[in-house]
Amino acid sequence: MADAPKSGPLVVSIDAMGGDNAPGAVIDGIAIARVRHPGARFLLHGRQNELEQLIAGKAGLVEVVEIRPAADVVGMDDKPSQALRRGRETSMWRAIQSVKDGEAATAVSAGNTGALMAMAKFQLRPLDGIQRPAIAALWPTMRGQTVVLDVGANVGSEARHLVDFAVMGAAFARIVLGMKTPLVALLNIGTEEVKGNEHVKLAAQMLRDANLPIQFEGFVEGDDISAGTVDVVVTDGFSGNIALKSAEGAARLVAYYLQTALKRSWVSMLGAAIASGAFKVLRAKMDPRTSNGGVFLGLNGTVVKSHGGTDGLGFASAIDLAIEMTRQDMTNRIAADIAGVAAILSRTAPAVEPQAEAPVGP
Amino acid sequence: MADAPKSGPLVVSIDAMGGDNAPGAVIDGIAIARVRHPGARFLLHGRQNELEQLIAGKAGLVEVVEIRPAADVVGMDDKPSQALRRGRETSMWRAIQSVKDGEAATAVSAGNTGALMAMAKFQLRPLDGIQRPAIAALWPTMRGQTVVLDVGANVGSEARHLVDFAVMGAAFARIVLGMKTPLVALLNIGTEEVKGNEHVKLAAQMLRDANLPIQFEGFVEGDDISAGTVDVVVTDGFSGNIALKSAEGAARLVAYYLQTALKRSWVSMLGAAIASGAFKVLRAKMDPRTSNGGVFLGLNGTVVKSHGGTDGLGFASAIDLAIEMTRQDMTNRIAADIAGVAAILSRTAPAVEPQAEAPVGP
Repeated sequence: MADAPKSGPLVVSIDAMGGDNAPGAVIDGIAIARVRHPGARFLLHGRQNELEQLIAGKAGLVEVVEIRPAADVVGMDDKPSQALRRGRETSMWRAIQSVKDGEAATAVSAGNTGALMAMAKFQLRPLDGIQRPAIAALWPTMRGQTVVLDVGANVGSEARHLVDFAVMGAAFARIVLGMKTPLVALLNIGTEEVKGNEHVKLAAQMLRDANLPIQFEGFVEGDDISAGTVDVVVTDGFSGNIALKSAEGAARLVAYYLQTALKRSWVSMLGAAIASGAFKVLRAKMDPRTSNGGVFLGLNGTVVKSHGGTDGLGFASAIDLAIEMTRQDMTNRIAADIAGVAAILSRTAPAVEPQAEAPVGP
Repeated sequence: MADAPKSGPLVVSIDAMGGDNAPGAVIDGIAIARVRHPGARFLLHGRQNELEQLIAGKAGLVEVVEIRPAADVVGMDDKPSQALRRGRETSMWRAIQSVKDGEAATAVSAGNTGALMAMAKFQLRPLDGIQRPAIAALWPTMRGQTVVLDVGANVGSEARHLVDFAVMGAAFARIVLGMKTPLVALLNIGTEEVKGNEHVKLAAQMLRDANLPIQFEGFVEGDDISAGTVDVVVTDGFSGNIALKSAEGAARLVAYYLQTALKRSWVSMLGAAIASGAFKVLRAKMDPRTSNGGVFLGLNGTVVKSHGGTDGLGFASAIDLAIEMTRQDMTNRIAADIAGVAAILSRTAPAVEPQAEAPVGP
């Protein structure tokens, strides 16, 4: 149902109204993506008049886009449950529906993350064997980039969910980032076996003992993410979101310290002017737009969440990711990996599995 | 039992063997602290010969220190439970024991955090009404510094524990950092009421409804910590530790990007040389040694944990903190705050309280 069309142009479904700077930034992003992906076509969901005017102002866009009118918009602060109940006329709902109906291969939105995940889960359904889809982020590191998941789809995760995240994250690193044997680790508050909460410890045991086709490296700590110690860092959505945002805040703090320090005297301002090429490189390295996008993994279909405050360049990066995932047939390849792992776990760890699903009483 | 001696010199008990660079860095730190705190005396627990030699090499130290021989050392990777069972002859145990016995007002160690907390809890006991002592960190921000707790004493925390952390963190900010009405918030994955796990939501409800003497600001997200949005950020030990280390890693990553960028060409190297004064300021701002130390809150006595990899300057900062907490009578003032809050909660929120303590099934 959500398979990429095997022939014809690749179609990307776009929530044109989602995000702080929509629809302007979205149209800017498509204008960039059009050049990068000559074969692609774009289904734009949103307010027709507004979109028509923006498109008319961009060369070459009218030939590759098709507007699908949608009257409503999901607000950035709307509750996911409300958006799900009352949001059938929104640009976000419709953008996902196009993937469900097979009209588009993938969907991109810069809108409300919680609502997008709720709608994507409802319409596309999780893959067989997946209870909890996850949001994966691409985190820049000293060695390149690391996949971190979950960064906010779930507030808590049991051991078996963490194992699924490990499988999906490894598949993403292998298939989209081209890493041959990605190193996978669980995020913890120490690298010793004895530390961490029960879910993390049990997940480690399952990943170690079950002989899964994953290069499991044990535990890493928060500072290992930016160091690039491993290629895939697995954690629950609460800790993952806090790690991601704490790191963003710290990076901004250092940049602020640097700016303040360089403005202290005319000598340092002169030095900064001479070294301005270097600062340009630094800014580019730290530019969240170049690795923009959270990827929804574990659904029957590809959905990419762009940063809410993104501009056109960032939105284009999110489209890049969506197209690459589609080209690489991510959905079916993850489904195959998950099925394989479920088979192994049911053979090798029957005593462990039920515990991960045990209801918390009373 | 753990009260500061009301007269006579202030005595600081030191685990001279704890930390990656002990005992050298510890003795260096005491040499700095001796000058900063002319009235203070230091009880050094550790290997006598080694310590005697180091002390002899520092002017003025022999007059203010007293060595207490301790044969063993807690290893940085020792399990807390093992350290507790077999560690009675260690420098760490003895350092805390001096506080328990009233010989010293406060203890400082750069050793194994988990073992230090286990020994401190065992010997000093939690304050009346406190189930979970916490470790508070001082986090540098765009506006100064923010108290973040818990950063690793506990792996999970229920709502009532989070409320206690809020009370203790606010007291620390008020008393030691001199903030008149510290703003307190809970760390969450969104600022809306509906987000977060059950413990966080229930804690928010208690802090909002119970009319506690705390300026509660609701939820903040990870990036708010470095922004300095509030003065006290409350979270469980798992998320707090991950936030702290993820931020440290990100700050190092930005510094690494900057160094690499500045080395790109001779022009940028020249610029960097001219602006070197600014980089010195940046380094000083980012220097973890100037705000070194995790503070144990909620115990019958003051214990400060210095960073394990610290040098003398960092250890001296930890001593500063320990002395300031002692001078301000932190322990008794937190005990009074906690007693007041417990009284309010038992009057106003009887239906909520038991749930926070409910055992987890099956």
